[in-house]
Amino acid sequence: MVAAATALTLPAMAQQNYAQDSATIKKIYDNALTSFESYENLRYLTKNIGARLSGSPQAAAAVEWSRQVMEEMSLDRVYLQEVMVPHWVRGDKEVGRIINSKLVGTADAPICALGSSVGTGDAGLSAEVVEVKSFEELEKLGKKNVKGKIVFFNRPFDNTHIETMRAYGGAVDQRGGGPVAAAKLGAVGVLVRSMTNDFQDVPHTGNTRYEEGVTKIPAAAISTNGAEQLSKLLKNDPGLKFYMRMTCQTLPDVLSYNVIGEIKGSEKPDEIIVVGGHLDSWDLGEGAHDDGTGCVQSIEVLRLMKDLGLKPKRTIRAVMFMNEENGLRGGRKYAELAKAQGEKHVAAIESDAGGFTPRGFGIDGTEAQYNKVLTWKKLLTPYGLHDIVRGGGGADIGPLKGQGSVALIGFDPDSQRYFDYHHTQIDTFEQVNRREMQLGAASMAALVYLISEHGLEGGSAKAQK
Amino acid sequence: MVAAATALTLPAMAQQNYAQDSATIKKIYDNALTSFESYENLRYLTKNIGARLSGSPQAAAAVEWSRQVMEEMSLDRVYLQEVMVPHWVRGDKEVGRIINSKLVGTADAPICALGSSVGTGDAGLSAEVVEVKSFEELEKLGKKNVKGKIVFFNRPFDNTHIETMRAYGGAVDQRGGGPVAAAKLGAVGVLVRSMTNDFQDVPHTGNTRYEEGVTKIPAAAISTNGAEQLSKLLKNDPGLKFYMRMTCQTLPDVLSYNVIGEIKGSEKPDEIIVVGGHLDSWDLGEGAHDDGTGCVQSIEVLRLMKDLGLKPKRTIRAVMFMNEENGLRGGRKYAELAKAQGEKHVAAIESDAGGFTPRGFGIDGTEAQYNKVLTWKKLLTPYGLHDIVRGGGGADIGPLKGQGSVALIGFDPDSQRYFDYHHTQIDTFEQVNRREMQLGAASMAALVYLISEHGLEGGSAKAQK
Repeated sequence: MVAAATALTLPAMAQQNYAQDSATIKKIYDNALTSFESYENLRYLTKNIGARLSGSPQAAAAVEWSRQVMEEMSLDRVYLQEVMVPHWVRGDKEVGRIINSKLVGTADAPICALGSSVGTGDAGLSAEVVEVKSFEELEKLGKKNVKGKIVFFNRPFDNTHIETMRAYGGAVDQRGGGPVAAAKLGAVGVLVRSMTNDFQDVPHTGNTRYEEGVTKIPAAAISTNGAEQLSKLLKNDPGLKFYMRMTCQTLPDVLSYNVIGEIKGSEKPDEIIVVGGHLDSWDLGEGAHDDGTGCVQSIEVLRLMKDLGLKPKRTIRAVMFMNEENGLRGGRKYAELAKAQGEKHVAAIESDAGGFTPRGFGIDGTEAQYNKVLTWKKLLTPYGLHDIVRGGGGADIGPLKGQGSVALIGFDPDSQRYFDYHHTQIDTFEQVNRREMQLGAASMAALVYLISEHGLEGGSAKAQK
Repeated sequence: MVAAATALTLPAMAQQNYAQDSATIKKIYDNALTSFESYENLRYLTKNIGARLSGSPQAAAAVEWSRQVMEEMSLDRVYLQEVMVPHWVRGDKEVGRIINSKLVGTADAPICALGSSVGTGDAGLSAEVVEVKSFEELEKLGKKNVKGKIVFFNRPFDNTHIETMRAYGGAVDQRGGGPVAAAKLGAVGVLVRSMTNDFQDVPHTGNTRYEEGVTKIPAAAISTNGAEQLSKLLKNDPGLKFYMRMTCQTLPDVLSYNVIGEIKGSEKPDEIIVVGGHLDSWDLGEGAHDDGTGCVQSIEVLRLMKDLGLKPKRTIRAVMFMNEENGLRGGRKYAELAKAQGEKHVAAIESDAGGFTPRGFGIDGTEAQYNKVLTWKKLLTPYGLHDIVRGGGGADIGPLKGQGSVALIGFDPDSQRYFDYHHTQIDTFEQVNRREMQLGAASMAALVYLISEHGLEGGSAKAQK
């Protein structure tokens, strides 16, 4: 019975696992916080390539750059996935102007076209404005009050939400659904209050939608300060007009790519863990927090594995998804190919909420998978990862849902500053704090490592919450 | 037995307390996140008054301004405490220059005098440089290698610390103790690597110390980029010289004030809860995160109590301490007067770690007091306050230690960005995120409210950790 005497008991094994995991996670954080590679990658992506809307030359450059960066990392495989993407272009800088009804004066208003919007034509568009806070209010106004006018959706963020994502969720229907609802009542244009908690002069772009059979009318975001001013002026001068000029248009689809780097699993190569962000960005600013950080953090996860000599049991893939902002074609393509190839995804982790200080992860999976992650909570809380919550996921990994038992996991950084920059010209490299971003990468690497080592099976409902 | 039948049982009372507390805390956060008063106060303090080093006209203006702000709040009492403070002035903008030993070239190096430093004289000072990473290294070099030279303390922050305060703690001895240690070995000047995790061109000031009987030699901070450059050049050119010119000097002490606003407790007016920050700042920048935010957050705690119609059971005092940066005279004076007047302090909460997103509180008190705060953890975690840890406190409230059973509590915001700005010209209003700062104020108000309602007695060791 020598073997039995020397073998570790189950609790002892668990303890040994814990010590090993704890030591490895410490190494991951130490390395991430003292290496400048991810930060320099972000600098290149934002400063040398810059804004990279789907279909643009910069998006193509970002594909080539991220492929090269990963090629140089001695990964097991780096490859591209072809995907046709929309090609919307903004055209000239937009003009927005408030015109007093007696034509005694005008005031510039900072606007920008919403993604996918049609233009106004070269001469621009001038019409009276009707302000609403909700779709119900718009419906009540009816055709007689809306026809021929610009509908101004002005419901602000509810700042009492602690998580700004909830405030966004409570307002963004105006941006997505505004043009169709307004056009159905005969409106000729749409202005949407910018999606931010802040009071600013910069407008926030973002995608909007049209529907077959409904007239496509031009739609722009107006800055929050501009929205406040317009609303105030409307109260005194309901007959004022708004002039908007936008030369944006949608060109034919363009061939683009998801970019993927991979470390093959040493024990279970067929079980795949994805970690990703989106490579495209809006055309304003530099797409730093949205989502340059998610991309360089995902690459950093692979770099950390290599640099620390970790041999992950399961396959780890960093995926730079293309076209999250105005089509989600890359995310859909990735899931489609995964399914066609019969790949088994264990987990997919997305970083698309900015390079801010880590708070935790949101887990969209089974109770057992969630409980499994909870068993690691004590390993994660020393690094500020307290919020291990149910729900989450992300736009690009969303299409994987239902493929086998894949858990969809959203990395959740602190959300307070995200909508200060989101979809604007001020989403720049300078707004990213190096350490916050590095901590995010390390947090993702720590979770990837734990899933790779232990899988997501067997989480007991009794796990510590 | 009608009375007994209608009386609440103890667990039911606890449940009712919990529900009431939870509802009140929600109101506190809702109000703080939708009121702009604290943010506008910060704007005034930083933009209209600006840098406010002890003894300066701006410090006097800050005293008068904060007194007026609180006077207008219908508090029960607003008053000043006289305190004599040091009056150090920086003089001309400092000059720092690296001079090649063959005199073939010079390079500017960004330096600033450390607080309390003597000047170099009008002509400046030029000497060879000896670089060290530690006091041990300096000791080993001895007089023969140090005499007549400038000692360059170049131990960097250890970036592997998750809490940047720990990295600061591991480096700041160089700033405080460098000049005395160097002077004892005959050095003529001191350069200290700036106290920051970041690589920057801006130098970080901060106080230094002299000792009776040890020659006072001029001491400056050099930016981290400057330190890296100087270190690199020294390796190739050990004979290079450094030129520094500083006209700083210490003038006679000046009369200044702590500024205090108070809401009298409705049930236990003799039990005092202090919430405070320091009103003085360094003379560079605007003292926004250090510690404008602590001041306006403390005032905001009182405003929230008034605006929500809360009648705190215990007395709540917002204290703007004077002279934290280069003397701590205000904190000492406050404690001295509290003792002389036989005041009973239950708790003192200090905010002096920046206006960043809240993480928790550090509690320097008895086990029972700590456990009492832990019983409120479920009320606080929904607001991101997970780190309820032992230890903490703060510089200004430190002198209260040992007075009765006062618990010293440090408000702990996220620390990642603090040392990007700390003691520099870039610690400006623009670096403060409104919501992060408001959340900090609400967090302080929530804890003040709980202590005011329930005191800090009776925390059981069995409390949930």
